[in-house]
Amino acid sequence: MSQDSLLIIACSESDANLYYATRFLAPDPFVFLQVGTRKVLLMSDLEIDRARAQARVDEVLSLAEYEGKARQRWQSPHLIDTVSVLLEAYGVSAVTVPAAFPLEHGDRLREKGVSVTTRPDPFFPERLIKSEDEIAAVAETQRHTEAALEAALQVLREGRIAGEGVLWRGKPLTAEDLKKVINLSLMENDCVAQHTIVACGIDGVDPHNEGSGPIRPHESIVFDIFPRSSRTRYFADMTRTVVKGKASDDLRRMYDAVLAAQLRGIELVRDGASGQAIHEEVARTLEARGFQTGPVDGRLQGFFHGTGHGVGLDIHEPPRISKAGAGLRTGQIVTVEPGLYYSRWGAVRIEDLVVVGTDGCRNLTRAPKLDLLEL
Amino acid sequence: MSQDSLLIIACSESDANLYYATRFLAPDPFVFLQVGTRKVLLMSDLEIDRARAQARVDEVLSLAEYEGKARQRWQSPHLIDTVSVLLEAYGVSAVTVPAAFPLEHGDRLREKGVSVTTRPDPFFPERLIKSEDEIAAVAETQRHTEAALEAALQVLREGRIAGEGVLWRGKPLTAEDLKKVINLSLMENDCVAQHTIVACGIDGVDPHNEGSGPIRPHESIVFDIFPRSSRTRYFADMTRTVVKGKASDDLRRMYDAVLAAQLRGIELVRDGASGQAIHEEVARTLEARGFQTGPVDGRLQGFFHGTGHGVGLDIHEPPRISKAGAGLRTGQIVTVEPGLYYSRWGAVRIEDLVVVGTDGCRNLTRAPKLDLLEL
Repeated sequence: MSQDSLLIIACSESDANLYYATRFLAPDPFVFLQVGTRKVLLMSDLEIDRARAQARVDEVLSLAEYEGKARQRWQSPHLIDTVSVLLEAYGVSAVTVPAAFPLEHGDRLREKGVSVTTRPDPFFPERLIKSEDEIAAVAETQRHTEAALEAALQVLREGRIAGEGVLWRGKPLTAEDLKKVINLSLMENDCVAQHTIVACGIDGVDPHNEGSGPIRPHESIVFDIFPRSSRTRYFADMTRTVVKGKASDDLRRMYDAVLAAQLRGIELVRDGASGQAIHEEVARTLEARGFQTGPVDGRLQGFFHGTGHGVGLDIHEPPRISKAGAGLRTGQIVTVEPGLYYSRWGAVRIEDLVVVGTDGCRNLTRAPKLDLLEL
Repeated sequence: MSQDSLLIIACSESDANLYYATRFLAPDPFVFLQVGTRKVLLMSDLEIDRARAQARVDEVLSLAEYEGKARQRWQSPHLIDTVSVLLEAYGVSAVTVPAAFPLEHGDRLREKGVSVTTRPDPFFPERLIKSEDEIAAVAETQRHTEAALEAALQVLREGRIAGEGVLWRGKPLTAEDLKKVINLSLMENDCVAQHTIVACGIDGVDPHNEGSGPIRPHESIVFDIFPRSSRTRYFADMTRTVVKGKASDDLRRMYDAVLAAQLRGIELVRDGASGQAIHEEVARTLEARGFQTGPVDGRLQGFFHGTGHGVGLDIHEPPRISKAGAGLRTGQIVTVEPGLYYSRWGAVRIEDLVVVGTDGCRNLTRAPKLDLLEL
């Protein structure tokens, strides 16, 4: 029995595995033990009533009670002393823990003679395969993401090009203005977006630059929006690239190449497909159109990030569609998001969210991408 | 030299120690090594330019370059293989890591003969002592927190009592409405609030219930708001309890007791004071006014959480003002937030944020608390 025992000590607010296992959200760390199929929590007095009402587990035990038992053996028991009393009560002498299990806890458990083995991610392999409810939750967050993008695009449409800037409501429109519009729209729908990217021109050439300052006409503007629903906890993720004004021929060629590569990637996503093979084909599509990747003026340019990643309770989760990508499986939700980044021309990234199916994939993204250049 | 080496492998987005050490925010894990006073980062190609521009470290090394070196010795090197090459390059054979360092990484490093020692929290003891800049950042987030509370109180004032509910803009006012007003106000000021509590009546009796549904007149409403500034990354934290309509005599007695206990707690905060002693005195103040703590009808009632906690780059950080509280020191920022929770009467919690000083403390909170009952 004991080789099946799983132990997590974490904060479900930040640890998606613990939230997945319990569907219980708490701001402070708590203890999860699974013996066979039986799930048990050790909860503080502050959380125990709520945990008993909400957590999808078999039993919620009182941390205070187990601390009392530990105090019969140790004067000021550490959390791991208390956990060891719990393990004894369940006849568990060996536990499997997540790769990210705290080393201090691991060392203390081993000092007590408990066998502690880490399981590489994904800790719950079944977490990668989304249920219909989970797909619906991601799709719902995606709808709100699209509404937020549309609100920002509406601002861009309303803006008036004036020299090197765009005037909106009498003032120069900034990346910060657009982010605020996006984040407010998301919040109206109970979604929280952090690090929303609105990167104009050279800002976008660093894919993780969030963007700042005045929006300039005729330059690429990358919108990358990846909020979490506060209600369901599921993320969505979408990127669109637009231009206010007129795109240069080079930028248009980049856009067409990225779109072609993205469509090619989406075409290849299906059960059994190799994430690595898809990524390589996407990269080849860009190269075939003349867009090389490598250092230029001491800076990496071209296409130098992965094609996609899983999305669910974490914004970045397996599987990867990248150099290190493994086989895709039906029910996984992944992004397909190639991009091109050149200091001379700007940045283009286009990202959709798709569900892997037996014979292809289902695109959860409804925002247009064919006619976005030149608002 | 090597006994001074610190190693963190984490995501600075969720690991405040890593952000503190580098002031660099990235969504994916990266490697931080400190040898003596020299700080070094190992960064992916995707982040390296931004890290070199922004991170407050001595050197930003290329992860890809070190992976290349590792590939000369291992066919498909794991991250820890690459880290071991870095450690060798710096002559480091022993590292001190945070208590939460991932066990899998710890095991792999030890397999390579590296001595890995965990340091109990706080990993950087100096993080608890806030500089003037850090105090200013927390105070700024606190100002935005107060503006958000005021926006919600204004809605309550505008609301009209109608039977069992409160009408606002022609509809029954809900906890969700008030949370939206708060969160939108915060977002206007670049602050992100998660799990804002607006808990009316019985909801508030569970201190971590976020509250939902219609606001009822003449019942306690607990507002607990703890946003982070997206700009500075520093949190603030404040709780106020109000009543729309008329508070019962019992509720008023509770309010007066909590306020007296809170003022007593604040009075005791100073350099050298024991967090445990302050907590005990706060609890005694409540008991002296007749408010007992213990299980009633199978539910813990009275005052059953700590009096306070540190606030900074984490919303909950040391020191604690609680049963387990240690000595306070000048420059720490702590909350003082006693509460009373009774199924029969409702909940009251009052929380301010103070800076520990030599002869007392400086209250960063400006929101009124004496005249909040009965809006």
